[in-house]
Amino acid sequence: MEKNIKLVIEYDGTDYYGFQIQPDGRTVQGEIEKSLSVIFQKPVKIYGAGRTDAGVHAAGQVINFKHATERTVEQIQRALNGVLPPDIAVKSVEEVDENFHARYSAKRRRYKYQILNRPYRGVFSRGFAFFYPYYLNVELMDEACKIFTGTHDFTSFKASSKEVKSNIRTIFLFRCYRSEDLVIFEIEADGFLHMMVRILTGTIIQVGRGRFSLEKIQHILEAKDRRQAGPTLPPHGLFLVEVKYE
Amino acid sequence: MEKNIKLVIEYDGTDYYGFQIQPDGRTVQGEIEKSLSVIFQKPVKIYGAGRTDAGVHAAGQVINFKHATERTVEQIQRALNGVLPPDIAVKSVEEVDENFHARYSAKRRRYKYQILNRPYRGVFSRGFAFFYPYYLNVELMDEACKIFTGTHDFTSFKASSKEVKSNIRTIFLFRCYRSEDLVIFEIEADGFLHMMVRILTGTIIQVGRGRFSLEKIQHILEAKDRRQAGPTLPPHGLFLVEVKYE
Repeated sequence: MEKNIKLVIEYDGTDYYGFQIQPDGRTVQGEIEKSLSVIFQKPVKIYGAGRTDAGVHAAGQVINFKHATERTVEQIQRALNGVLPPDIAVKSVEEVDENFHARYSAKRRRYKYQILNRPYRGVFSRGFAFFYPYYLNVELMDEACKIFTGTHDFTSFKASSKEVKSNIRTIFLFRCYRSEDLVIFEIEADGFLHMMVRILTGTIIQVGRGRFSLEKIQHILEAKDRRQAGPTLPPHGLFLVEVKYE
Repeated sequence: MEKNIKLVIEYDGTDYYGFQIQPDGRTVQGEIEKSLSVIFQKPVKIYGAGRTDAGVHAAGQVINFKHATERTVEQIQRALNGVLPPDIAVKSVEEVDENFHARYSAKRRRYKYQILNRPYRGVFSRGFAFFYPYYLNVELMDEACKIFTGTHDFTSFKASSKEVKSNIRTIFLFRCYRSEDLVIFEIEADGFLHMMVRILTGTIIQVGRGRFSLEKIQHILEAKDRRQAGPTLPPHGLFLVEVKYE
């Protein structure tokens, strides 16, 4: 009988052209489908909760697939971790209701963005934090985060390339704090527009360095114009941390 | 006038044949000397506090070199971080007394060894922690660490290849604890024999899995025989954390 299997995975996005499968280039979806096909000896299609862009990492991406198998969830986890490349790992596997869909059933997604904020670059964080050596007023940046919390039209904070039905999203939590040499953003919402976290953080950094006021942030949000916002921060500081369901 | 310059550096040892310069293969010393030669336009020889082996990392290695230069320590740090490869970074630079020698003046060295101890392998720690998926009794391992604390002959815990004047060393601190999914050893001593930390931890892990008793550990120490001890753990879990001077 067909089972619906949910997996929580982590991956280092450095060497991937993003999550979603593509005709050319190594993708996370492509590697996982290839590994599942090796294990089950037939093609398997997976669905991912968040289609992370090239270079973005995941500490808690969720995927699901349907397959008729006698294997236990423990056996599937062990088999996958044995076959997958070292930059993708399966954290947990469980059998779920047949109606569960990793993407469409998701209620909230949480991301983290890391900035290395000290005078000299880092060795161990080099693939996992954006290096910014100049002073940042983190308290003011946290104030800016609060302006975005709630339900808003985020047209100013999406890459212009992709058209979607609505640019309205609800941010449940958005904060910024310092942890030793790292400045960390945490953001949780019902969904995100394309590049939204990287444009939001790239805009708020302008507050931290004294270029944008909090009033300016309010104006950018209301302008619904991508050109008013700050630059898109690079992908390697971004992590999909958690996906929440009912 | 010639200055004696002390640097604290960090490096990701993954792609190096160790610290010490060699005829073949990329070394940390080789890369730093090459970068200094580019900056000062003449050959510069450096001295390192700890000659870390291939694949071992450093969060606080200390080196020094002598050179007649008008540059400030800030200029040297900035220039070096601009020229060095991304897996080596200079944390601090200072001018020191002419008699300071990174290796011979060092009084204590501190290392850390990280084990990822959970059922599934890790993606972000894969180059920086030894993956061990089975149960470890960390409290008992910490008891074993205490047996080694103090002044002892560590003949049982050195790679047989290198002959040194004395195998007696003093361990000032040696402990083992769990931090989330990591089991971490911290060890500080006046010096270490070749591979000593990796053989000590490879022996103590046998206590954690129930293969060696604490009495057995005492016997191995007294035996002065490498064959009695446990295996050498892999290099990628090991970090040179700090070097202390007067």
